[in-house]
Amino acid sequence: MLDEKIRRLATEGRNFAALSTIMPDGTPQTTPVWVDADEEHLLVNTEVHRQKYRNVRRDPRVTVCIWDAEQPYLYGEVRGEVVETVTGPEARNHIDELSRRYTGQDYANPIQSERVILKIAPRRQYAR
Amino acid sequence: MLDEKIRRLATEGRNFAALSTIMPDGTPQTTPVWVDADEEHLLVNTEVHRQKYRNVRRDPRVTVCIWDAEQPYLYGEVRGEVVETVTGPEARNHIDELSRRYTGQDYANPIQSERVILKIAPRRQYAR
Repeated sequence: MLDEKIRRLATEGRNFAALSTIMPDGTPQTTPVWVDADEEHLLVNTEVHRQKYRNVRRDPRVTVCIWDAEQPYLYGEVRGEVVETVTGPEARNHIDELSRRYTGQDYANPIQSERVILKIAPRRQYAR
Repeated sequence: MLDEKIRRLATEGRNFAALSTIMPDGTPQTTPVWVDADEEHLLVNTEVHRQKYRNVRRDPRVTVCIWDAEQPYLYGEVRGEVVETVTGPEARNHIDELSRRYTGQDYANPIQSERVILKIAPRRQYAR
């Protein structure tokens, strides 16, 4: 189960997260992302042509660091694995939901390839 | 040389960065940090007992993701290496400087071991 403090950071407000994936040479790729959660997973929505997606297809281990935009000393780190990916209408609708929370509007950027939801199961969680 | 946009993100305002280091098993450790820069390096100030420091002693490759706290769509990612570490009075003074910029006051937390500055040379930089 996802830590409740981390779940709140990921579902309330407009807190950005840093998603780290593993490049082929072992170095982290770390980029800011919108973030969401269900009861068991952190959810990140990306596109299938992105380096982060190529990385998790090769190695599903990821780390998500998320902090409260208003109080950055409240933060959580989740090390886990992408255990499921979802494409199609569910992923397309999910980016609109996320966009409404973060920007107040449907997602306005062009879809360059195909949206995909990464479902991240926590293996190790730390919240402070 | 450090990208000028990234240098500004790291030296102006109170922008937090996500520092990713590599755990012994290859997974990223990603934590929020204060950040600073000189002309050539990103600077992060930590303590020598921390996991992030143990990680960079073993593998100096790190990734720093930094975004504008007011406009999070302005961000930079730096993949690089810790090429120098500095302890002693310079590191102790530097955490006070950082603290004054981020909190308005000298660093008030207890020093648990010893402060250390990580000087990170960029190998690959991306700013948007």
